[in-house]
Amino acid sequence: MARRRVDVPVLVEAAREGSPRAVARLITLVEGAHPALRDVMAALAPHTGRARIIGLTGSPGVGKSTTTNVLVRAYRERGARVGVLAVDPSSPFSGGALLGDRIRLVDHALDPEVYMRSMASRGHLGGLSWSTPQALRVLDAAGCDVIFLETVGVGQSEVDVAGLADTTVVLLAPGMGDGIQAAKAGILEIGDVFVVNKADRDGADVTVRDIRGMISLGDRTEPGLWRPPVEKLVAEQGEGVDAVMEALDKHLAWMESNGVLHERRVKRAADEIEAIALRTLRLRMGDVSDGSDVGSLAGDVVAGKSDPYTAADALVASI
Amino acid sequence: MARRRVDVPVLVEAAREGSPRAVARLITLVEGAHPALRDVMAALAPHTGRARIIGLTGSPGVGKSTTTNVLVRAYRERGARVGVLAVDPSSPFSGGALLGDRIRLVDHALDPEVYMRSMASRGHLGGLSWSTPQALRVLDAAGCDVIFLETVGVGQSEVDVAGLADTTVVLLAPGMGDGIQAAKAGILEIGDVFVVNKADRDGADVTVRDIRGMISLGDRTEPGLWRPPVEKLVAEQGEGVDAVMEALDKHLAWMESNGVLHERRVKRAADEIEAIALRTLRLRMGDVSDGSDVGSLAGDVVAGKSDPYTAADALVASI
Repeated sequence: MARRRVDVPVLVEAAREGSPRAVARLITLVEGAHPALRDVMAALAPHTGRARIIGLTGSPGVGKSTTTNVLVRAYRERGARVGVLAVDPSSPFSGGALLGDRIRLVDHALDPEVYMRSMASRGHLGGLSWSTPQALRVLDAAGCDVIFLETVGVGQSEVDVAGLADTTVVLLAPGMGDGIQAAKAGILEIGDVFVVNKADRDGADVTVRDIRGMISLGDRTEPGLWRPPVEKLVAEQGEGVDAVMEALDKHLAWMESNGVLHERRVKRAADEIEAIALRTLRLRMGDVSDGSDVGSLAGDVVAGKSDPYTAADALVASI
Repeated sequence: MARRRVDVPVLVEAAREGSPRAVARLITLVEGAHPALRDVMAALAPHTGRARIIGLTGSPGVGKSTTTNVLVRAYRERGARVGVLAVDPSSPFSGGALLGDRIRLVDHALDPEVYMRSMASRGHLGGLSWSTPQALRVLDAAGCDVIFLETVGVGQSEVDVAGLADTTVVLLAPGMGDGIQAAKAGILEIGDVFVVNKADRDGADVTVRDIRGMISLGDRTEPGLWRPPVEKLVAEQGEGVDAVMEALDKHLAWMESNGVLHERRVKRAADEIEAIALRTLRLRMGDVSDGSDVGSLAGDVVAGKSDPYTAADALVASI
C-alpha cells in the first residue's frame, strides 16, 4: 500500500485552525510512525505548551468513560476546548478490546470543540512512550486547553500515563478491593487526585478511608509535598463533579506556584526525546540486522560461542 | 546498600553443578541488573542451548499454576530437570499481585531437580525483554532440560513470552469468553498448542470448537505450517495430561525436523542482543542526561523553541 503524500504545512495549518479531520489525520500519522512526522512536529512546536494534560486511569469497571464524560462537560461549560486521548494497552494487534465503552462519549460526538481519539499501543517499536506524547502534541497545537489521557489500569500503562500527564487522576470504585490493589500496583505513588466513583454504593466510605489511610502512611504528607485529595463521585448522576474539578484546579495552582508543572514538563520532554532517540538507534540496528551482522552474532550466541553482552558490544560498535 | 562482592567463577560452577542457591543468586543478579552479569553470561555461554523453553500464558483464572504443576510432574516422570520461571507483568514496583497462586507449585518445592522462580518485570529500563532471557540462560546452564516460562495474559506480556519460548502454550477455560478474547488479543497468532483447561465444565466443547474454527480461518492451515492442536485438560484431576505432552512432543519434533527451532533461537538471541545493546545506549543517554544535555534540550522543547525530533538528533549525535 503506497502511503498518501502528506502536505505538512497545509495539514498543520488546518489542525491549528481546529479542523477535526486534520487533527485526526495527524494522529493517524503518529500511529503509523509516518516519516513526515519529523516535519509535522517541527511545524507544531511553536504552538504547543498550552494544554493541561490530565491522566485518568483505573481498573476495568470503575467508570472511566462516564467520568471522563462528566469532566469533559464541566470543562466545556467553562468554555475550554477539550481533547480526549484513550490509550489501549491491551492489544498490540488492534484497537479497543478494553475500551469498547468508548461509545459512551457520544455525548460530545457532535461538539466541534471536543476531540476524541482512541489509540492502540504499537507493540515494541517505541510503543506508548513514543506515540502518545506526539498525539498529545497534536491536540495541544490544535488549541485544546485540556486533554484527558485515559487508560485502563493494567500493567505498566498507568505508570506510563502518569509520566505523560500534568495531573494524574486515579479512579476507584467501592467493593472492588481497589484499596489493596492500589497499594500493590503502585497506584498510590502516581495519583495526584483520587476519585471514588459509584460513591452511592455500599462501601464507598470504606474505600475513601482506606485510600486516605494509605496516603497518610506514605511520605506524601511531608510539608511542601502535594497531599492527594480523595473525592467521591457518582459520575452517572453527575454528583460530586464540582469537588473533583476543585481538586483539579487546586493541583494545577499548586504546580504553578512552585515550579512543579514546569519540572514535570521538562522531564516529560526529556523522556520523549529519549524515546525518539532510542527508536532512531533501534532502526539503525534494524538496518545493521538486515545486513546480517546481528544474524551472525545471534548465531554465535545460540551456538554458545559468544554471549549476548559481547555480541551487544559488537552491535553498538557497528552503529 | 553496598553490593555484595560476586565471585563469578565460583557461583557459575556451583550453578552448573545444580546448586539451587547458586541458581537463585544468579537470577537475583539478573533482576538487579548487576554489573557482574557480563562476566556471568560469558561464563555460562558454553553451557547453554540445551533447554527447551515452553511458554505458558492465559488469562487470570484459567489455571496456569495448576497446569504448570501437572506438566512439571509429567516431565519429572521422564527424568527431566525442570525450571519454572513465572514472570509477573502486573507490577513494576513489586513482585506478585497476579501470581499469588504461586504457592500451589509447592508440590515440587522439595524436589531438587525443579527450580522455581518468580520475577517482577522491572519497569522501563530493559524490562521483560532484557531480564527474562538472561534468567532463562541461567536455568539452561544449570542443566534444565525443560523450562516453563509462565506469564499472565495481560497486555504485551504474552506476546513477549511467545518471542522467548520454543513452544507457546495458550491456556483457556470454558465460559470465559476466551474465544472472542483470543481473536482480539492476537493469542491465535502466538499459540503453538492450545489447551482448554477445566474441560469438565460446561461449554468446554464449545470453546474447543471456537478455537479450532478460528485457527482454520487463519493462514495456519497452509501446507508446511504448524497447525496448532487444541487439547482438553482437567489439570486439577490430571486428566488429559498425556495428550498435552504428546502435542508438546510433536511440536518439538516438527521444529527440529525443519529448522524452525534453530530459526526461533537465532531470532531470540538477536532480540536479546538488541535489548542489551539498547540498554547500553540508554545508559549512555542517562550519562549525557546527568550532564544536562538532555535537560537543556528538553527545556527548549517545552518552550516551543525546538521539537523532539530535532532534540533527539542532537542527543543521538552526542553519544
